[in-house]
Amino acid sequence: MINTKQDLQDYARGAALLGAGGGGDPYIGRLLAEQAIDAYGAPTVIQAEALDDDACIISVAMIGAPTVLMEKACSGDDLDHLLEAMARHLGKKVDALMPIEIGGVNSCLPLVAAARTGLPLVDCDGMGRAFPCLEMVTFNVYGCDVFPTVMVDEHGNEIVIRATDAPKTEKFARSVIGEMGLSAMISCYPLSGKQLKRWAVTGTMTLALELGRAIRLGRQSDNPVQSLLDALNSTHYYSPARLLQEGKVVDVERVTRDGFSFGTCRVESQTGYSAIDLSFQNEFLSATNDGGYVATVPDIIAVVDKDTAEPITAETLRYGQRVSVIATNIPPLMRTPEALAVFGPRCFGLNTGYQPHERTTDQLE
Amino acid sequence: MINTKQDLQDYARGAALLGAGGGGDPYIGRLLAEQAIDAYGAPTVIQAEALDDDACIISVAMIGAPTVLMEKACSGDDLDHLLEAMARHLGKKVDALMPIEIGGVNSCLPLVAAARTGLPLVDCDGMGRAFPCLEMVTFNVYGCDVFPTVMVDEHGNEIVIRATDAPKTEKFARSVIGEMGLSAMISCYPLSGKQLKRWAVTGTMTLALELGRAIRLGRQSDNPVQSLLDALNSTHYYSPARLLQEGKVVDVERVTRDGFSFGTCRVESQTGYSAIDLSFQNEFLSATNDGGYVATVPDIIAVVDKDTAEPITAETLRYGQRVSVIATNIPPLMRTPEALAVFGPRCFGLNTGYQPHERTTDQLE
Repeated sequence: MINTKQDLQDYARGAALLGAGGGGDPYIGRLLAEQAIDAYGAPTVIQAEALDDDACIISVAMIGAPTVLMEKACSGDDLDHLLEAMARHLGKKVDALMPIEIGGVNSCLPLVAAARTGLPLVDCDGMGRAFPCLEMVTFNVYGCDVFPTVMVDEHGNEIVIRATDAPKTEKFARSVIGEMGLSAMISCYPLSGKQLKRWAVTGTMTLALELGRAIRLGRQSDNPVQSLLDALNSTHYYSPARLLQEGKVVDVERVTRDGFSFGTCRVESQTGYSAIDLSFQNEFLSATNDGGYVATVPDIIAVVDKDTAEPITAETLRYGQRVSVIATNIPPLMRTPEALAVFGPRCFGLNTGYQPHERTTDQLE
Repeated sequence: MINTKQDLQDYARGAALLGAGGGGDPYIGRLLAEQAIDAYGAPTVIQAEALDDDACIISVAMIGAPTVLMEKACSGDDLDHLLEAMARHLGKKVDALMPIEIGGVNSCLPLVAAARTGLPLVDCDGMGRAFPCLEMVTFNVYGCDVFPTVMVDEHGNEIVIRATDAPKTEKFARSVIGEMGLSAMISCYPLSGKQLKRWAVTGTMTLALELGRAIRLGRQSDNPVQSLLDALNSTHYYSPARLLQEGKVVDVERVTRDGFSFGTCRVESQTGYSAIDLSFQNEFLSATNDGGYVATVPDIIAVVDKDTAEPITAETLRYGQRVSVIATNIPPLMRTPEALAVFGPRCFGLNTGYQPHERTTDQLE
């Protein structure tokens, strides 16, 4: 499925969009995947239905502040260590790998691990986007065990967490990250084939590839952002999608704290008559217009270049950028009350319930 | 060996002395051991020589700030969980338990675990005293693996650390303790019988019992502190022992930081003509007289009540207490250059090499 450098570029770009501004710089992930595919060949991507019910599938990801991921990538040896450690703790053979999130660098790392090991990669993830905390996955929402959670760093340090629940696992992981240099390799939610088929957000690797391809091809049109919106609206998961604001980045505040990148960003229309304020914790959490919510998590809020529709991550936002802010729907598994209890706006400290972006009636420019 | 309540009291009191002011309040440890022995019977204590070379021996301890241990003891279930988890990660049956340090609460916790499980307890430890960091044991000095290191808390959370070395293990453990409520159960340095016989400080449980008994019986004499010094001087490990200062606690500063209790204490002679300044990081690290070192780690510096020779831990030091400050030698395994590189004064940030207390020539009152 992802065989050429062009495929990889498209895939990484699509994943950057689905990263909702977070998930780590996909450029780094793409370079790592390119190198691994050059050295070991392209991994086989399989569909969830192809899995035996008792197959053992594990996820591969980086955890940490995206601001740090930009400077500290993985070595490959650490991924091998991660997979070996997880198999050792599970006491069984691993049959396939998967991304835990389709957004950002974590969409590409499983490609690296799969290329190195020859294990197949399942076309799915646990979010249909990116989220900052490891309890924010469908597997947790629907009752799969997060443990054992294995973390390794580039020095060969290995931590195994077996906590009472996923939020506590997240807390332990964050406390350990500091000693691992603020980013580490992590595997959690080891799944059976049966669990994966039931609770994964399937087909998202294909969707990332298609959306990235649409961005590239859309650049031949008059309106690349509209082409992207058309592509999003042609998917089952991300439709409806719409433009929230077009304009200039006039303010960015950003702080790296507790292993996360927190901040806000204002995008003002060229005329100056309207503005959208974005908040983020690694990923964009909300878009407000004069204090009123026009979009919130778990809907995807993304910022793209106005002229090229290139996704812009929260850590690369700069004053003066000309951007379009868009919002999309998310997969049905992620809009249930159980799901919103785990990654709805209040889980991020926002003072609002979930506001499906297509139902907000605010006037937009 | 430790069968009656009287034995337990003596043992805990001796361990408090060998705790060098740290290791957690032994009173708490004694109550826990009393309760366990009432419920399950006294554990069997065996000598190191009785172990097969390929026996599997694991340590049982609490880790955290002594100021917190005073308020948050163990439940028993957490010890069971700790032993089960260590056996699971080792993939073998555990044959015996041991204290990792003979000082303070960690001298008593293995009694609780041994009583609950029926496993024998080996008459030894890894320090011959107490130390604040988990790399500060003879096993680390002489090349035994610290991993797997298992930590559990009272909620059932479990962390396994497999770090590149013992100091890094200590750092991970401290980073995790915060999420475990600043104290946790820990097991590390799983040993073979062969390793234990070679590198453990043997016979220290017996010594703690005898020293505690000497303190109790010494109260019938005119000078309990002198009786204690005589008892210390009759041992191979802790001789020579001497009185550094008798007087009043006139100043105590204490702060709980990074999972440790740090501080200083001044003991002034009744006449006011001389004073000893003590520094501590959980345990007493140094005694100075007008800025000159009269004793340093790893020698044991202990503060006892002037009239009863009752050991006083650093966290229970109070203004106005009438005390005697004593210093003792330590076992030969702990005075080698390799040992001093791991727990000599410079390892605690003191600006001095090891000063064997019997060689410091300062005038003492």
